[in-house]
Amino acid sequence: MEGPGLAPAESFRLTEQPQKDARRRVAIERVSPEIDGGGFAIKRVVGESVVVEADIFADGHDQLACRVLYWQGTEREPQSSPMTPLVNDRWRGEFRVSTIGTYRYTVEGWTDRFKTWRDDLSKRITAGQDVQIELLIGADLIADAAKRAAGGDSELLREWARRLHDSAEKESGKSIALEEELLPAMARYPDPKLASRYEKKLNVTVDRLKARFSSWYEFFPRSCSSEAGRHGTLRDCEACLPYIASMGFDVVYLTPIHPIGSTYRKGKNNSAVAERDDVGSPWAIGSAEGGHKSIHPQLGNLQDFRRFFSKAEEHGLEVALDIAFQCSPDHPYTREHPEWFWKRPDGTIQYAENPPKKYQDIYPLNFETPDTLELWDELKSVFQFWIDQGVHIFRVDNPHTKPFPFWEWVIGEIKGQHPDVIFLAEAFTRPHVMLRLAKIGFSQSYTYFAWRNTRQELTEYFTELTQTDIREYFRASLWPATPDILPQFLQVGGRAAFMIRLVLAGMLGANYGIYGPAFELSENAALEPGSEEFLYSEKYEIKHRDLNAEGSLRDFVARVNRIRKDNPALQSDRRLRFHDTDNPQILCFSKSTDDLSNVIVVVVNLDSFHTQSGWVHLDLSSLGLDADNPFQAHDLLSDGRFLWRGVRNYVELAPGSLPAHVLCVRPADSYGAGF
Amino acid sequence: MEGPGLAPAESFRLTEQPQKDARRRVAIERVSPEIDGGGFAIKRVVGESVVVEADIFADGHDQLACRVLYWQGTEREPQSSPMTPLVNDRWRGEFRVSTIGTYRYTVEGWTDRFKTWRDDLSKRITAGQDVQIELLIGADLIADAAKRAAGGDSELLREWARRLHDSAEKESGKSIALEEELLPAMARYPDPKLASRYEKKLNVTVDRLKARFSSWYEFFPRSCSSEAGRHGTLRDCEACLPYIASMGFDVVYLTPIHPIGSTYRKGKNNSAVAERDDVGSPWAIGSAEGGHKSIHPQLGNLQDFRRFFSKAEEHGLEVALDIAFQCSPDHPYTREHPEWFWKRPDGTIQYAENPPKKYQDIYPLNFETPDTLELWDELKSVFQFWIDQGVHIFRVDNPHTKPFPFWEWVIGEIKGQHPDVIFLAEAFTRPHVMLRLAKIGFSQSYTYFAWRNTRQELTEYFTELTQTDIREYFRASLWPATPDILPQFLQVGGRAAFMIRLVLAGMLGANYGIYGPAFELSENAALEPGSEEFLYSEKYEIKHRDLNAEGSLRDFVARVNRIRKDNPALQSDRRLRFHDTDNPQILCFSKSTDDLSNVIVVVVNLDSFHTQSGWVHLDLSSLGLDADNPFQAHDLLSDGRFLWRGVRNYVELAPGSLPAHVLCVRPADSYGAGF
Repeated sequence: MEGPGLAPAESFRLTEQPQKDARRRVAIERVSPEIDGGGFAIKRVVGESVVVEADIFADGHDQLACRVLYWQGTEREPQSSPMTPLVNDRWRGEFRVSTIGTYRYTVEGWTDRFKTWRDDLSKRITAGQDVQIELLIGADLIADAAKRAAGGDSELLREWARRLHDSAEKESGKSIALEEELLPAMARYPDPKLASRYEKKLNVTVDRLKARFSSWYEFFPRSCSSEAGRHGTLRDCEACLPYIASMGFDVVYLTPIHPIGSTYRKGKNNSAVAERDDVGSPWAIGSAEGGHKSIHPQLGNLQDFRRFFSKAEEHGLEVALDIAFQCSPDHPYTREHPEWFWKRPDGTIQYAENPPKKYQDIYPLNFETPDTLELWDELKSVFQFWIDQGVHIFRVDNPHTKPFPFWEWVIGEIKGQHPDVIFLAEAFTRPHVMLRLAKIGFSQSYTYFAWRNTRQELTEYFTELTQTDIREYFRASLWPATPDILPQFLQVGGRAAFMIRLVLAGMLGANYGIYGPAFELSENAALEPGSEEFLYSEKYEIKHRDLNAEGSLRDFVARVNRIRKDNPALQSDRRLRFHDTDNPQILCFSKSTDDLSNVIVVVVNLDSFHTQSGWVHLDLSSLGLDADNPFQAHDLLSDGRFLWRGVRNYVELAPGSLPAHVLCVRPADSYGAGF
Repeated sequence: MEGPGLAPAESFRLTEQPQKDARRRVAIERVSPEIDGGGFAIKRVVGESVVVEADIFADGHDQLACRVLYWQGTEREPQSSPMTPLVNDRWRGEFRVSTIGTYRYTVEGWTDRFKTWRDDLSKRITAGQDVQIELLIGADLIADAAKRAAGGDSELLREWARRLHDSAEKESGKSIALEEELLPAMARYPDPKLASRYEKKLNVTVDRLKARFSSWYEFFPRSCSSEAGRHGTLRDCEACLPYIASMGFDVVYLTPIHPIGSTYRKGKNNSAVAERDDVGSPWAIGSAEGGHKSIHPQLGNLQDFRRFFSKAEEHGLEVALDIAFQCSPDHPYTREHPEWFWKRPDGTIQYAENPPKKYQDIYPLNFETPDTLELWDELKSVFQFWIDQGVHIFRVDNPHTKPFPFWEWVIGEIKGQHPDVIFLAEAFTRPHVMLRLAKIGFSQSYTYFAWRNTRQELTEYFTELTQTDIREYFRASLWPATPDILPQFLQVGGRAAFMIRLVLAGMLGANYGIYGPAFELSENAALEPGSEEFLYSEKYEIKHRDLNAEGSLRDFVARVNRIRKDNPALQSDRRLRFHDTDNPQILCFSKSTDDLSNVIVVVVNLDSFHTQSGWVHLDLSSLGLDADNPFQAHDLLSDGRFLWRGVRNYVELAPGSLPAHVLCVRPADSYGAGF
């Protein structure tokens, strides 16, 4: 990204400069992106750009020159990239991040005496003024630059200065001064002696691509057995991998695989009393057989896990683990570190509560223990343990009930050693808390998507996530349902509702996931009316399902994932844009690549019961289309092809067949003969 | 401002706390007001409030307690003021500034274990749960608070803890725990051990009232002679004071009073060649008779100045001086400090230019001289010299052509010693530069008012200045005209145009000024069509005027200033609000005191040629009025009284008589029999 006309870092060494030199006249304000005054890093994936803007100005009327400085990792010498003026003293520059890890950036500006001099000179010459003295001044400026220049440039500029000096009295001096070739040569050797540098260095966390674009499949390993009634094993899970891979996912996320406590174990449907054969919740972690670094014996052992991990890799699937920092009463920590829990005056340990509700099978950790740092170290070692087994993606359970400083520290520590690790925050809580978790380091975040159903809700929420500063650090992960959340929309809307929500999740969100096989089998029985809990929730029992059941959405899911893989427009949320429709039951949005080489328009019938029709009103210019020429709309779901024209186009979507169009659009004349 | 329920600073000593304690769980974001990440101070005058807001939240579900901490001057111990929750984790607190100088403030939040415990307890009791252990936990919390408490409170809380502990098994324990009196007692002794404090202390510059509310009268002292043709003196100026005071101004601002250079002196109408008797521009400062610390001999001497200053004070007028840091070629600096100027290759000093325009009578100072700090010191001494003569208000000429760091330094130095000094920035330049000058310390700022004429222009501009963060640091000073600026609107609109612009300046701006007597005599002849220069500008010649000329706006000006003095609503811009009208030539806005005890509605006909009528649509609730009852509208300009009712009210304004209403409105039933 070294820009033309600016010195490569080698020729022009920048060092830390004192900011308070009395003569630094350039002011730098409102640098963007900057999260909370620079307190938090923005996020990018490898290959993306960071577009930096700032208000930069000085007293008086001198011309300015500005640039972005950026450092990869712990490099001491910055690279630089030129900034160009927009309007109203706003400047913009850009650099590309090419390596996983961290970058820092800042902005620098200085008065450009040469540019100022040259512009003034043109005006003087136009006004017919005597410019002899001005030409001598210019010769001095060029001679100064020659001293800063390297190699041949130095010689070139020195010669230029001499020629100009010697011709100052002659008519030819003017043309020498205004020679175009002088401009880039001078721009290569600016005099940043009095440059102002923005006082902060701002941080970028650079992740691998999967942090921005991923398709998750969540499942309970113990339900993978091929025989009804038998506890599934990790070996059984291996057998499920071809099925999952055939749907086109790239992450398999296992619910917790650790030993499960028996004290106060919950029975089916969250019953307070477990039957003898009840398997308990995988989130009630820990038993005499171990804690967060152990595997539930009925699933297998560490060797089985590593084998499963390799098999998954062979199918193009990366394994994500669920990390839930809480303990069953039987967890080894409760004996080895009773001080990590809240002790009650009667000597018992405080179980989890949300008064008046009680969760006796779970002990929360006490992060206000005097031994905090010892606790932090142990929890960090849990991540490290699974990283050592190959795991580089973690879905973190309820991070919003543990302190922010802990997450900031542990994610920083882990990513410092393993910058390719991805953390997904499973927090469904108040907006500022959700955002804070993303700011302090979580790579991806669950969202309110499950509860955003109407056109207005979806438009407002996803515009906020993708078109404000939030997009700089918060990467949404969209889940139509989870083992904890069966939304009303799915409970009542049947198979069509599942299709609608799948299309929305997969098209609105570059990151999305489903909880399977419940999802592709459209399981929608709730515990009771008004509840979002599943009836006979898999959290408390083993499920056995017919994956080939009629009506499975397996092929539809595969098609959605295929479309996501084939279309780079869908692999980022940055260029999400909503378009008007004249029927509130019809949602229309588009995504595109920066260069508009891939443009996808999605139209969804939000009503799972009725066919809906209406007109969509496309903002054609945002799609690279013009109103006068027809354009192709190739429906990647149905493989149908339409010829559309102009802003308004008609759609009709029947939930019983296909409730959505996913249209790849392009100007008609760009199509080959194949159309 | 010590709030109820929070510890006075004495009982609970706050010291600088380490921010990174692992157990500090509370996050504090988006503190407001905060200018550019805390880089600049907000401004207040004595007696005003600082309302502080922040997003404050923690992990989990604990109750929080939050407060504003603030320090006056260099005090080490803060005072505190409680914050209350608004919505969505936003908290608000407030403190009052009572002393000129500086304040600092920040925000603190902590999880309130007692409040959390008490709320949970209520829920448990409602659910009929056994709470014996909970009551023991509460007793411990109260006993802890007793240790932090002082004097009688300590004894009280200890006793409470004992009673609760002893009754934990009994029914009476519950009622002891929930006793209302316990709440304030516990709130007085919070446990801020794990409190999070916002990492920055934010600054407030507290000025005297005149920084917010002032009425300026600018004039050329040399034009004050009672005889045509004679150069006016400071003694002559004394004789003008009653005239100025009678119009109700409180600041008299003198154009520069220093010796004027003769080299390249400008003649009448800015002619490049001066006649023998031409007096030159007062801004071409410096001659053999002295520079910025000298008085032009034809005006008098320092003794005359001090005498004038005292006489002005007797008339309730404070003297403001014009400080223009530039030199005529004859200024002593040019000999004593040639290094403070740009030297050209031919050995001459660079005069001011805006190519191709040349200003040979002015040498700009070179702030990039290696001797910068010596130059800065000298310029500071200019302010100090006039402060020693009693001057505490400076109108600074063209500050935008001198470096920001210089102003930040010199204003900081001067106000550190003399916090009552007021600096007005005369910068008419690009928006960010104008705002930056205010951020770095100027107490008041000229604005674009002179070029904002239409309803839309005025509404947008003054909404931006008064209803965004800009209001925290930028105090507008509104001038309908200056010696440099005779706007088109005044050139063509006659006397009515001057009335319109006067009402707008005086009512929209708590700070405003006129350039007299040109203004009250409606002088409107421009140098040439399209120019904003006065014909026979007073900048280059002495004027002699008949102050009693027919048509003088003297009485009208006096009335406007009287209304400003009588109505506190007009003495601040913070509650400026525009109201709709159905005629774009009619502008309607209101100002009010915070408590709505004084509400002014201004309606102005913006058309200086035609009578305009229409309906104004008042936002009644912002005025403390309701739509069902009539309200009084007393026109303070005409002394007319109207009974208005509801949102829509009719107005008709004739520019030939009175182009504006300045209505004092109040509910009809609050009026006495006098109506």
